[in-house]
Amino acid sequence: MLKYLTLGLCSITLMGLTIPPVQTKEAPIALVIHAGAGTLAKNLMTPTKRKHYEAVLTQSLTDGYAVLKKGGSSLDAVEASIHMLEDSPLFNAGKGAVFTHDGTHELDAAIMNGKTLAAGAVAGVKHIQNPISLARAVMEKSPHVLMSGDGAEAFATLLGIPKVEQRYFYTQEKWDLLQEVKREAEKAKPFGTVGAVALDHAGNLAAGTSTGGLTNKRFGRVGDSPIIGAGTYGNNQACGVSATGHGEFFIRTAVAHDIYARMAYANKPLKQEADEVIMGVLKPMGGEGGIIAIDKQGQIETSFNTEGMYRGWVDRDGKVTVKIYRE
Amino acid sequence: MLKYLTLGLCSITLMGLTIPPVQTKEAPIALVIHAGAGTLAKNLMTPTKRKHYEAVLTQSLTDGYAVLKKGGSSLDAVEASIHMLEDSPLFNAGKGAVFTHDGTHELDAAIMNGKTLAAGAVAGVKHIQNPISLARAVMEKSPHVLMSGDGAEAFATLLGIPKVEQRYFYTQEKWDLLQEVKREAEKAKPFGTVGAVALDHAGNLAAGTSTGGLTNKRFGRVGDSPIIGAGTYGNNQACGVSATGHGEFFIRTAVAHDIYARMAYANKPLKQEADEVIMGVLKPMGGEGGIIAIDKQGQIETSFNTEGMYRGWVDRDGKVTVKIYRE
Repeated sequence: MLKYLTLGLCSITLMGLTIPPVQTKEAPIALVIHAGAGTLAKNLMTPTKRKHYEAVLTQSLTDGYAVLKKGGSSLDAVEASIHMLEDSPLFNAGKGAVFTHDGTHELDAAIMNGKTLAAGAVAGVKHIQNPISLARAVMEKSPHVLMSGDGAEAFATLLGIPKVEQRYFYTQEKWDLLQEVKREAEKAKPFGTVGAVALDHAGNLAAGTSTGGLTNKRFGRVGDSPIIGAGTYGNNQACGVSATGHGEFFIRTAVAHDIYARMAYANKPLKQEADEVIMGVLKPMGGEGGIIAIDKQGQIETSFNTEGMYRGWVDRDGKVTVKIYRE
Repeated sequence: MLKYLTLGLCSITLMGLTIPPVQTKEAPIALVIHAGAGTLAKNLMTPTKRKHYEAVLTQSLTDGYAVLKKGGSSLDAVEASIHMLEDSPLFNAGKGAVFTHDGTHELDAAIMNGKTLAAGAVAGVKHIQNPISLARAVMEKSPHVLMSGDGAEAFATLLGIPKVEQRYFYTQEKWDLLQEVKREAEKAKPFGTVGAVALDHAGNLAAGTSTGGLTNKRFGRVGDSPIIGAGTYGNNQACGVSATGHGEFFIRTAVAHDIYARMAYANKPLKQEADEVIMGVLKPMGGEGGIIAIDKQGQIETSFNTEGMYRGWVDRDGKVTVKIYRE
C-alpha cells in the first residue's frame, strides 16, 4: 500500500522531460459481513440486545478491516471477520451453532479466492471450533474442494488442528430453540449463517460463509453454505458473494454464482442483479434470505427479502456501518 | 403425444370458415448420456471390450428413450438411463464404483427438474444400489436438496429403500486399480462418472449424474456430481447439463450452471458455450473432463478435453449414436 502511494506521488524525469505525478488514488479496500437473515423479530429486540449484536458485528468488521488496512489479503480479512462471528454465541456458526434433531451440532463452511478460483469447504463437522479455517485448509493444503463428516475431521487431525468437545457448542438459547421447534412439530427451522466478503489492496476478492445449519435438521442435510456457487462464490472478474437463508432454494438457483454470472455475462451492475436474484427469483419461490457482495471496484451491496439481516460494512473511505433491519 | 399429433392434423371450422390444419411437428424429445471421460486408453481398447461398452451404452439409451417415446417425463428417462449404467460393472457408478483409500465404496448422485428447479442429491452413501433413485427421493420426498453419509442412509431406511452390502460393489478391475494407484503413490485418481440429460414431449428438461468418486479418495471428499450447479444443472429456460471429470475444477467453475448462465444471460448457443467452458476455461486450469447437454429446442451437445468420453444420444429424429473417442 505504501509503495502504491509513493509511486503515485513521484514525478519522473526522463531524458530531460519531467512527467508530473499521476493522480493515483489508493487502491480501494472494502469489507462486508452478515450474520444471518434470521434476525430476532423487531418487536423482541430490546435496546440491550441490540447493543450486544451491534458490538459483535462492529468487532468483526474491525478485525477484518485491520487486516486489509495493513495490506493483508482479502482471504485473511474474511477469515478474521468470520472467526469473530464464529466465536460469538449470538449467531448460528461456530460457538453459537444450532442443534440437530439428535441434539448434536454439525457445522458447514466454505471459502473462495476470487483471484485463483481456489475454494475449500467442509460439511457436517462436529468438533471444529472454527470451521472457516478448516475450509481454508482444505483449499490450501489438499487437492480437494469439499470434505464431509468424519473424513473432514480426520484431515483436521492430520494437520494438527485441535478438536473441541460437542459441549463447546452448547448455548441455552439454541437448546431452547430446538425444544420449541420440536414442540411445534416443525421439521427443521432456518436460523442463520455468518459470512464475509472482502476486497484487498491487490484487487483480489474473497468470500466465506460459516453455519450451524438448520435447527432440528436430520439425515445429514447439507445446506448452501459449503456449496461453492450456492452460498459462496468469488471471482475477480465480477464480484464476491456470501449468502444466508433457506439453503435449499439457494442451491437450486445457485445464488452466488448466478449473481456473478449475471454481472459477467449480461454486464449488469451488482446492485440490480443482487436485488433481482433475491427479490425477483428467490422471493416468488418462497426462498427467504439475503446476500452480501462486493464488486471488483469495491462497491458494497446487501440485499435481503426478510424482515432484517444482521450486517455491516466498511466502505472504500473507511466508514463503518452496522445494521439489523431495513432502516 | 397422441393427443398432440391429433390436434395437429385436425382442421377447424369456425363460423363458416375452415381453418386448415397447422403443420404442427411432434414436440421434440431428446436424450444424451455419458459414462465418464476417464475412458480406457485407445491402444488398450480391444474390439471385444469396445463391443461391451457400446452394448451397455446402447441399452441405457434404449431404456431412457422408451420412457420419452411413450410420453414419459424427462426425469423418468434420466433415472432409467442412469439405472442401466449404475447396474453395469463397467463404469464408475453403482455396481462398478471405485474403491476409497480404505477399500470401501462411497457413492454420490444428483438429479434436477428443469421445469421447477427442484433438485435432490446424496453424497457419500455406502449401501444404496441406485444412488440416482435416492437422490430423486430426496428431491421429491424431503424438503432438502442434499443429504450426506449415514444421514442419507437413515432417510433411505425411512422410505423402505433396501440396502446392499458393501461387497455388492466389489469388482476385480476396480480393486486392481486401487492397488495400482496406491503403488504409484498417487493421492487420488479420477476415473469416471455416469450421467444423462433428457427433454420430454412436454418440453421439460432433466439432468442427473451418479458416481463412485475418485479411486483412493480420503477425508470424506465430495466431488462435483452431487453439487447442483457444478456436476448437474437443468433449467427449462436454457439447457440441462451433466458433467464428468476432475470434480474439484468443475466445482470451482460451477460448470453446469455456468453453461446455463452463458446461454441465459449472454444469449449464446449451447455448442459454443459448452466448448468455451470445457476448452477455454477448464483446460487451461488443468481441469480434465467433459459434459453432455440438451438445450430447450432439443439440440444435443457433448464436449470434452480428454482422449475420449463414453457417450451416446438419441436425437430428435430417433437416431441412436454411441461413441467413445473423438472419431
